Amino acid sequence: MPEYKAPIRDMKFVMQELLDCDSHYQKLGYEDASLDMVDAIITEAAKFTEQVVAPINQSGDEQGCTWNDGEVTTPDGFKEAYQQYVDGGWPTLAQNVDFGGQGLPHSLNTAITEFFSSANHSFAMYPGLSHGALATIEAHGSDKDKNIFIPKLVEGTWTGTMCLTEPHCGTDLGMLRTKAEINDDGSYSITGTKIFISAGEHDLSDNIVHIVIARIPGSPEGSRGISLFIVPKFNVTDAGEVSDRNAVSCGSIEHKMGINANATCVINFDGAKGYLIGEVNRGLNCMFTFMNAARLGVATEGVAAAEASFQGALAYAKDRLQMRSLSGVKNPEGPADAIIVHPDVRRMLLTQKSIAEGGRALIAYLSQLVDVGHAPVSEGRVNEAEKASAEAKLALLTPIAKAFLTELGLECTSHGVQVFGGHGYIKEWGMEQLMRDTKISCLYEGTTGIQALDLLARKILGSKGEILKPFGAEVTAFCVENSGNEAMQEFIQPIMTFGGDWQKMTEKLGLKAMDNPDEIGAASVDYLMYSGYLVLAYFWARMAKVSQDKLAAGDDDSAFYQAKIKTARFYFQRILPRASGHAACVENGSDSMMALDADDFAF
Amino acid sequence: MPEYKAPIRDMKFVMQELLDCDSHYQKLGYEDASLDMVDAIITEAAKFTEQVVAPINQSGDEQGCTWNDGEVTTPDGFKEAYQQYVDGGWPTLAQNVDFGGQGLPHSLNTAITEFFSSANHSFAMYPGLSHGALATIEAHGSDKDKNIFIPKLVEGTWTGTMCLTEPHCGTDLGMLRTKAEINDDGSYSITGTKIFISAGEHDLSDNIVHIVIARIPGSPEGSRGISLFIVPKFNVTDAGEVSDRNAVSCGSIEHKMGINANATCVINFDGAKGYLIGEVNRGLNCMFTFMNAARLGVATEGVAAAEASFQGALAYAKDRLQMRSLSGVKNPEGPADAIIVHPDVRRMLLTQKSIAEGGRALIAYLSQLVDVGHAPVSEGRVNEAEKASAEAKLALLTPIAKAFLTELGLECTSHGVQVFGGHGYIKEWGMEQLMRDTKISCLYEGTTGIQALDLLARKILGSKGEILKPFGAEVTAFCVENSGNEAMQEFIQPIMTFGGDWQKMTEKLGLKAMDNPDEIGAASVDYLMYSGYLVLAYFWARMAKVSQDKLAAGDDDSAFYQAKIKTARFYFQRILPRASGHAACVENGSDSMMALDADDFAF
Repeated sequence: MPEYKAPIRDMKFVMQELLDCDSHYQKLGYEDASLDMVDAIITEAAKFTEQVVAPINQSGDEQGCTWNDGEVTTPDGFKEAYQQYVDGGWPTLAQNVDFGGQGLPHSLNTAITEFFSSANHSFAMYPGLSHGALATIEAHGSDKDKNIFIPKLVEGTWTGTMCLTEPHCGTDLGMLRTKAEINDDGSYSITGTKIFISAGEHDLSDNIVHIVIARIPGSPEGSRGISLFIVPKFNVTDAGEVSDRNAVSCGSIEHKMGINANATCVINFDGAKGYLIGEVNRGLNCMFTFMNAARLGVATEGVAAAEASFQGALAYAKDRLQMRSLSGVKNPEGPADAIIVHPDVRRMLLTQKSIAEGGRALIAYLSQLVDVGHAPVSEGRVNEAEKASAEAKLALLTPIAKAFLTELGLECTSHGVQVFGGHGYIKEWGMEQLMRDTKISCLYEGTTGIQALDLLARKILGSKGEILKPFGAEVTAFCVENSGNEAMQEFIQPIMTFGGDWQKMTEKLGLKAMDNPDEIGAASVDYLMYSGYLVLAYFWARMAKVSQDKLAAGDDDSAFYQAKIKTARFYFQRILPRASGHAACVENGSDSMMALDADDFAF
Repeated sequence: MPEYKAPIRDMKFVMQELLDCDSHYQKLGYEDASLDMVDAIITEAAKFTEQVVAPINQSGDEQGCTWNDGEVTTPDGFKEAYQQYVDGGWPTLAQNVDFGGQGLPHSLNTAITEFFSSANHSFAMYPGLSHGALATIEAHGSDKDKNIFIPKLVEGTWTGTMCLTEPHCGTDLGMLRTKAEINDDGSYSITGTKIFISAGEHDLSDNIVHIVIARIPGSPEGSRGISLFIVPKFNVTDAGEVSDRNAVSCGSIEHKMGINANATCVINFDGAKGYLIGEVNRGLNCMFTFMNAARLGVATEGVAAAEASFQGALAYAKDRLQMRSLSGVKNPEGPADAIIVHPDVRRMLLTQKSIAEGGRALIAYLSQLVDVGHAPVSEGRVNEAEKASAEAKLALLTPIAKAFLTELGLECTSHGVQVFGGHGYIKEWGMEQLMRDTKISCLYEGTTGIQALDLLARKILGSKGEILKPFGAEVTAFCVENSGNEAMQEFIQPIMTFGGDWQKMTEKLGLKAMDNPDEIGAASVDYLMYSGYLVLAYFWARMAKVSQDKLAAGDDDSAFYQAKIKTARFYFQRILPRASGHAACVENGSDSMMALDADDFAF
């Protein structure tokens, strides 16, 4: 089991040096989020995840959750760790002060979320889901609902879920069958079965607040007839106290590839009492509000998995002696050289490192955009144009981050197994668990294919390319700004080349899609992957620039900045070129994909 | 759990129509291997794997092997299935008639091996390992050893293992510590611990014959001081009967990511009685003889995994209704369209299909080369030149097949999970098991990185490119032969382009490696992957050609041949272009990989 050490130094680099979170927080009025406070929270979160959360990761996987007559028991140590999490005030960090939160920025919470997810993917999901439920109620719930449900969700004594999927509908929520019938008192009776409900039942909290989508009889068919409800596991008094059990039960839990310590539940609603959130038939719109946040959370899991696997592989590669370097013995005292001398081992380690660090920068950048989105124009700290720009960047980059970083996260965990050789396949070392756990991130909150369609069809072609402009302008400005900087040309030139090709590819796809909409789906995943490689290149270039400046200024930490520049170089030379393969696939269009009749796939 | 149907039609296409196994077998003197016999064996193997082997795949994974005080129990049904396997004469198929075998060609056995591996990776490993042990004894053992051990291994009542790895050495076998001390009677006392011994202990057979590498005290250090021994679990009389227990014991079994129904054992040799095979200190050379065969077996697992996952995903994609096609409703009667209408689902299915079918062709081709290698020149059926050509092709293509097909096999099983969406992550459906099981194939018998070094350093640069010539000439001849065939140009032209670039890349690498040997390791995996995409393109082009000819001749099975051509087109348009990304990575060299000091990977 690799020992987890939170990447404090790198997180500070990204937040403070790359993205100047100090100015960002001051501008948005987060007076408490001083550099000292940011440091303190990151340091404490590191300690908590290393000492409390990581140690129950492997045992949690082995033991898993157990279901017994509707009750779910989490693995040993989870209840205690969750209690410490609540006692430490961690759930309240970025929540509204009106409901007991600390009112710190969302982006600060996102930073520590990575630590939790690296340390223990299953554990990190419990708070993650509460956050989605809480945010939904805060944005769309009545004042009464807010007062009853939010304080407990903020303090973490209650947890939340999102109940969307049904056996016959996942992506296609318009097909849902769960129904909501109005009661005399204005509440609803919810009846139906939901599946794949993460944290749907467990023993960590006093109550579980399900956010459920259902159809009110008589509503339009499809996605326009979906409403949203709060359905607590235990009914709740007006004073916000738990009372009797609601007609909500956990029918079973799934046996899965990974995330075994997070119960994935079948939840049965048998006329359960629920409360409408938002307007009738506007449920999906209410959900969409938080889709970016949820997807950003999953993207973070990809980075977290790459980081955790990198740490394990790096330690092993420095320790394991096997064969001699092709370019001469490096460890003459020992029976063999450490495997980190072998170029192919380095290729795998540097792939992990460049994805983890590049992804961290992208996530931190996006989470600052979320901060901007949360800031009300009325306070005068951000104007409409700034918010619109942030929204456009977030809308564009979220599906890229979600799909690209989780696919690359999976690849990185596979490299982690490879670095260990046969040992990587053995559970004891913990490397294969990372691979099993992180595969879910390519699936939930919209598969890679769905993200790719969201990006290309809904966002880019749907806006006739408008959505590309703010981020495109930012990247162009950066390139122009550094056009005279000789040392930056190895990074700037490829961005301009690949960026120019991206633009041409996008325009061409727009034209082709007018003739044949299947061109969109056929290109989408390769297009998204191309975009991901390019976007990460931009962040690597920015990190290289910051590092060059630090070195030029004679910063003491020169080894750190030299390593950043070398890693940037690796990314540009050995990762970014993969985009060419994706471009060539996009170029070749949909014909070969659509030609085969469904009956002719197998004989 | 996807229902497995052996791909009989496609296997016949590959063996009979693409590779004309009839002429091939006649030329080599396999008179019994008539087309009827080939058909009968494939049909029976399909039945056996579908009805006996596949049904215990999922339960075998759930239950796993259990260790109790040195005894290993296989999951329910394995013992019975193995007994049926023995009773059916399956282990004897391609074995020497002198020892009770049926004397059928190796390539016929390889064909049915794919079925076994698709149906149940863990089960298929038991006979696979016996085969390695048997072949080693047959090639290098004394007549006495042959007479004692081979007949039982042939009939399958005894099984075999290969005991190479020790805790501190996997790839670097020169570091082994297991020692072999000579006894007065000429036998040896073997002492040491071996790990990762697949099928090292189990309840399927009456005896287990371990082939063990060990060092005789006083031998040279490193790989030149390794000798090879037969060490049976039970001692054996001269008459070949089992007698008392040898000092060999199973200390424990590993808990793994997958292949849970095949016990991966720690085997302790405590002065166990062993018999030298071959010459003292020539053990590794004896092992090398069978490395190609073993690696070809693992390559087959990659194809088998892609096929099994494809079958599961295809059935689901035709059945699962979700969303409407972007190009218009395809299933107006239903609430949604089957997901096979969506281009991205087709991309994943066709990737699986093109890798499974292309890989099947490559494996079948290589297994025919093995047949040629087995044929003695003395019988006058093959001459020295033919054998040398076959050996060169086999040496070149085996590491490519092993690494490329297992990496792509893993990718294909990941696509299989994605096609199922969240359901793919649930054990019940069997899709995630395929992914977990097949990951081992990227690790054992030499990791992907080791195959890549074998290909580029040992084979290609080690032969100064000589090894490329026979296969290169074959591909060139095919291109020339079809240069006037208009309908073949979409396949021929890319092969010529990518092939030309391959040659240039290889020459350039040869030059760079003279200055800096790390260039080899830095390029190796990308180079291998490039080679893999190109090699499979050649086989797809040949399959397209056969199909065009069949269609031109008015064959009744036109849907099959049309599908082949369409799949070939998909491969050329959407898979082969990936090679460009790998080429670009190779082009960028080793500098960015070697620049970072081992201590500067993390701060």
